[in-house]
Amino acid sequence: MIRAGIVGGTGYTGVELLRILALHADVEVLVVTSRADAGLRVDALYPSLRGAINAVFSLPEVETLAGCDVVFFATPNGTAMLMAEQLLVRGVKVIDLSADFRLKDVKQWSTWYGMEHACPDLIAEAVYGLPELNREAIKQSHLIACPGCYPTAVQLGFFPLLENDRVDVKHLIADVKSGVSGAGRKAELATLMSETGESFKAYAVGGHRHLPEIVQGLELVAGKSVGLTFVPHLTPMIRGIHATLYGQAHGSLDDVQALYEKRYANEMFVDVLPQGSHPDTRNVRGSNNCQISIHQPQGGQTIVVLSVIDNLVKGAAGQAVQNMNLMFGLKEDSGLKIIALYP
Amino acid sequence: MIRAGIVGGTGYTGVELLRILALHADVEVLVVTSRADAGLRVDALYPSLRGAINAVFSLPEVETLAGCDVVFFATPNGTAMLMAEQLLVRGVKVIDLSADFRLKDVKQWSTWYGMEHACPDLIAEAVYGLPELNREAIKQSHLIACPGCYPTAVQLGFFPLLENDRVDVKHLIADVKSGVSGAGRKAELATLMSETGESFKAYAVGGHRHLPEIVQGLELVAGKSVGLTFVPHLTPMIRGIHATLYGQAHGSLDDVQALYEKRYANEMFVDVLPQGSHPDTRNVRGSNNCQISIHQPQGGQTIVVLSVIDNLVKGAAGQAVQNMNLMFGLKEDSGLKIIALYP
Amino acid sequence: MIRAGIVGGTGYTGVELLRILALHADVEVLVVTSRADAGLRVDALYPSLRGAINAVFSLPEVETLAGCDVVFFATPNGTAMLMAEQLLVRGVKVIDLSADFRLKDVKQWSTWYGMEHACPDLIAEAVYGLPELNREAIKQSHLIACPGCYPTAVQLGFFPLLENDRVDVKHLIADVKSGVSGAGRKAELATLMSETGESFKAYAVGGHRHLPEIVQGLELVAGKSVGLTFVPHLTPMIRGIHATLYGQAHGSLDDVQALYEKRYANEMFVDVLPQGSHPDTRNVRGSNNCQISIHQPQGGQTIVVLSVIDNLVKGAAGQAVQNMNLMFGLKEDSGLKIIALYP
Amino acid sequence: MIRAGIVGGTGYTGVELLRILALHADVEVLVVTSRADAGLRVDALYPSLRGAINAVFSLPEVETLAGCDVVFFATPNGTAMLMAEQLLVRGVKVIDLSADFRLKDVKQWSTWYGMEHACPDLIAEAVYGLPELNREAIKQSHLIACPGCYPTAVQLGFFPLLENDRVDVKHLIADVKSGVSGAGRKAELATLMSETGESFKAYAVGGHRHLPEIVQGLELVAGKSVGLTFVPHLTPMIRGIHATLYGQAHGSLDDVQALYEKRYANEMFVDVLPQGSHPDTRNVRGSNNCQISIHQPQGGQTIVVLSVIDNLVKGAAGQAVQNMNLMFGLKEDSGLKIIALYP
Repeated sequence: MIRAGIVGGTGYTGVELLRILALHADVEVLVVTSRADAGLRVDALYPSLRGAINAVFSLPEVETLAGCDVVFFATPNGTAMLMAEQLLVRGVKVIDLSADFRLKDVKQWSTWYGMEHACPDLIAEAVYGLPELNREAIKQSHLIACPGCYPTAVQLGFFPLLENDRVDVKHLIADVKSGVSGAGRKAELATLMSETGESFKAYAVGGHRHLPEIVQGLELVAGKSVGLTFVPHLTPMIRGIHATLYGQAHGSLDDVQALYEKRYANEMFVDVLPQGSHPDTRNVRGSNNCQISIHQPQGGQTIVVLSVIDNLVKGAAGQAVQNMNLMFGLKEDSGLKIIALYP
Repeated sequence: MIRAGIVGGTGYTGVELLRILALHADVEVLVVTSRADAGLRVDALYPSLRGAINAVFSLPEVETLAGCDVVFFATPNGTAMLMAEQLLVRGVKVIDLSADFRLKDVKQWSTWYGMEHACPDLIAEAVYGLPELNREAIKQSHLIACPGCYPTAVQLGFFPLLENDRVDVKHLIADVKSGVSGAGRKAELATLMSETGESFKAYAVGGHRHLPEIVQGLELVAGKSVGLTFVPHLTPMIRGIHATLYGQAHGSLDDVQALYEKRYANEMFVDVLPQGSHPDTRNVRGSNNCQISIHQPQGGQTIVVLSVIDNLVKGAAGQAVQNMNLMFGLKEDSGLKIIALYP
Repeated sequence: MIRAGIVGGTGYTGVELLRILALHADVEVLVVTSRADAGLRVDALYPSLRGAINAVFSLPEVETLAGCDVVFFATPNGTAMLMAEQLLVRGVKVIDLSADFRLKDVKQWSTWYGMEHACPDLIAEAVYGLPELNREAIKQSHLIACPGCYPTAVQLGFFPLLENDRVDVKHLIADVKSGVSGAGRKAELATLMSETGESFKAYAVGGHRHLPEIVQGLELVAGKSVGLTFVPHLTPMIRGIHATLYGQAHGSLDDVQALYEKRYANEMFVDVLPQGSHPDTRNVRGSNNCQISIHQPQGGQTIVVLSVIDNLVKGAAGQAVQNMNLMFGLKEDSGLKIIALYP
Repeated sequence: MIRAGIVGGTGYTGVELLRILALHADVEVLVVTSRADAGLRVDALYPSLRGAINAVFSLPEVETLAGCDVVFFATPNGTAMLMAEQLLVRGVKVIDLSADFRLKDVKQWSTWYGMEHACPDLIAEAVYGLPELNREAIKQSHLIACPGCYPTAVQLGFFPLLENDRVDVKHLIADVKSGVSGAGRKAELATLMSETGESFKAYAVGGHRHLPEIVQGLELVAGKSVGLTFVPHLTPMIRGIHATLYGQAHGSLDDVQALYEKRYANEMFVDVLPQGSHPDTRNVRGSNNCQISIHQPQGGQTIVVLSVIDNLVKGAAGQAVQNMNLMFGLKEDSGLKIIALYP
């Protein structure tokens, strides 16, 4: 039985981890921390967990967390980097769902996240937790930097094109739409229902923190410098990410379709749909799946890739558990056999 | 391994049965029928089921279904009554999610459903599949009439008051709000997103088919005639039922709360919340739970009971599987350990 | 040209006042105040007003506001009572959209609003701004207490029954559903889209501030003590209130229908629908209308009244402008000829 | 007083025309036709129009319509082309909101719309009713082909770049998101709330009928052949279109911003937002405005233009009325001074 701790258990990725881990046959949730709600029963805050989680929020203290085999950080950026080392030296594996260890270039990290990195030495050690890219490294790792939600959808959508040098890497476009839960559980005007319901908008077109993370991943598989325009949008729904990806490609649609099918043939959570399909975010809602389809409008040069995930599952908590499964030698889909909630 | 068949697998209760049964350790889905889509892969129509269900829609033929141990009818009203007998004589258990066997009074049935009953002899044999009311009878039954979604939420909310004679049964009110999936997967103007989104309305105030079903259940436990005003409403969301129940009660709130807690102490799917709670439909979304809270505004005579379920789970497919578990001697929550999808 | 000021122009009722007044032929908006956003152009905060309002937020100072003929308070409770007197003595009419002057009993006000009333002497002077109840008094008044959104829908729905003594006033029930904009434009967890979207809940069943306001109005027209159970609910939509009202009534449905039609025959903003109708909140969205229908399920004793309004228009800003029109001798529907936005 | 007729008054563009024309000071709605609902009062079908429209649906007969000065066709494709000529010869001006006269190439029209054109001779005569492109021609015209909703948002967003030869016209991308009302008021599974709520998807990536219409307009202003990839998406909201446009441009962001501001300086319904803005569809909901902003992410070569409209107003009924105003010499914004409904 793997003893798990969750630091920052009151946000949406925290609750989602609890939803998944509570039914994971090999995991016992030992500690759930929250500074603000310490002392409160978890299911008093989240009645959806009544009967499933019998825990009380505690303060995020290293001594308590040291009793765990693995600790998940479902915290705002800047927290995991303060505690990770203390846990690692005590033999606790760390899976960080925040951005603290995602970028390999510490200067770039400071620029985009607006603070000094508290623990730059660990960056090199951290493995970027995208199993479809780094499966073997993840198995050996003690410190996982879980990918962001946008980067997961975009990278999985672009990889086969870039790995096979089938696209002009200088002019990639990722037009991505997210449900509002991606903004987290924070008291903010901008994500009130009255502000986001029945409306659609782009945001951060000038530059979003997930841009350098995506570019880092794409350049890694492309083996060269990549030019990406990334435009995130807010969609009036709670869960789901839909990436619409554009590139100038070489090769017929049949070839590219075959490339994608081969690339993901053995991936249990990436599903290449038949030609002509349009993936729908509801078909992955609540599940750890990524569904992808490929189009070549009017038989032209432009390839359009559609890639959908649930931002809280494959884009966060589900992927974190997938990483944990790999790190502990479990079956990769343990606790993740979840079918999307349709309708 | 229980071999299950689903007649009418293309509606929302059909897909929901598939979502649950695909992960049920003791069940194999052998047959899924659809007149309109026979020959099509199930997951071609429902990509959410890709990788989970490897079946093709077939025509609804008795010979094929006879190979099953249990057949679920997720059909419009009027279909199960035509096929149930043929299956029963072949030793197949039948669980009907439609209304065909819910009302004990066949004349009343004809009045409300606007057709002759094709199989009145079976009505007496059918057990009303509300486990919290009829658990032992369900275990012995071969033919289950699964309750409607409104009746489930309302009856579970009223039972303790009526069983203990704590309420004026002549003036009960059930003001109930449903998500639009309750209207089914039918091409109709009235349930278009443009017609139901961002809007709220009552409907069928003059009389809704679930009224006689609710009254039948309430009178059974009350042991006397009951006067109920039932007003259903359409809410701009997909899943969920919220019943707000009013009655003139005797006894303090503490007493009534204790009554409810005792009544449902051993029920795994009915959860009486602490005093002062307000259940939220999202906290049961996708799960088989009913959450209930009791209020007595301003310490007056009026008791207000709030009762929420997911109309497609405890109000349909989940309850059907709960019945199946009981009929086959399985653990009652087999395949139903599902935590609500929040947010 | 009436010079108007708005104190608290950044909330939803403030913006809604601007939407209406910007197109009102007899009004010029002179001052819009906001402590937080003073110095900012109004249309920089609200791009929906670009081209329609050419104003800059200013600080809420009496000297500036004194240049207006009328000042609307679209502020949180507790603000208008601090400034109203200073404006009145300067000859400025005051229309308060908050609750400061709604309750005639100052003790009751303090109990429900949790503070001392700063200006109890003005309470008697204030006219409750429900034109369908107090039209003549409003015309003479200098200080209007605009009704709350719930109270508007509930009172208009109940008035004909109570005025004609056709209902058992001891057991009235108001089961009311509101869109989330009723909670205001405040950074709060509870009204995030991720918290309120796709979900339905009751709240404040133990006691809501609008209860004493409704009871005060009902008792006034009934001429006796009234017993009301009022249960508010939050609906996953932005605008709209749907009141479902229950009472034990005398008289046939035809009689009651005739009563309602007669009562509101000359009201331009109250519309009694034909028998058998179910009003839909979208049909009044953005307009100042109240649509009402009456039902008598199964010909029983219980009368069900359905009453819908847009909480931000007839429930707030539109009603405030209707009051202004009356106070200044304009046509009652000046600036209020707005057709609901459907779909 | 202009006497107006509406053919096909039961769809969303028909009702929207009624909402606008009912308050238009210079227009009297004389005829509203509907084959299915002939004989029914318009406000019986659309209670939002009670008190505003006093008309009864009639059959679509030329003799009746001939009494009008102008007839709007809010019909499915293929209807206007059957009746337009008969009305024109009787001196009635025709404004077609469907696609019948939008494409100048009749073969292309037949290919995309899957039928023979019944009236090819009129195509040359029809003026494409985008006032920002064809204002003077519209004033002289008797037959207007109103642009589609997607084409309006996309063309207004691209025009300044193409008119000034500032973009590589071979690789334009239009990633466009629409609310579901764009699919019309038709009983179809695909646009049920249960199918489109809380979900996001692309559709018709292989080819959408609005593609040739957009290309025709872009080539006209560019003066050369244009390569466009157009991907439409369905967004879980009712109204609104958000176009995200990508092109490889020459010139600094300041230059391009200045270009846009100059181009639309005298356009009352096109509003170029300050640099750094992100238009939100709610800010044009219910209004005839198009709001546009321009970005140049990371100072690169790619220009991103964001363009939003209400698909039923500037994308349909509002634009039709704008055309009518021009044709009849009225002020261009008569009846169109509508402020967006926020929130």
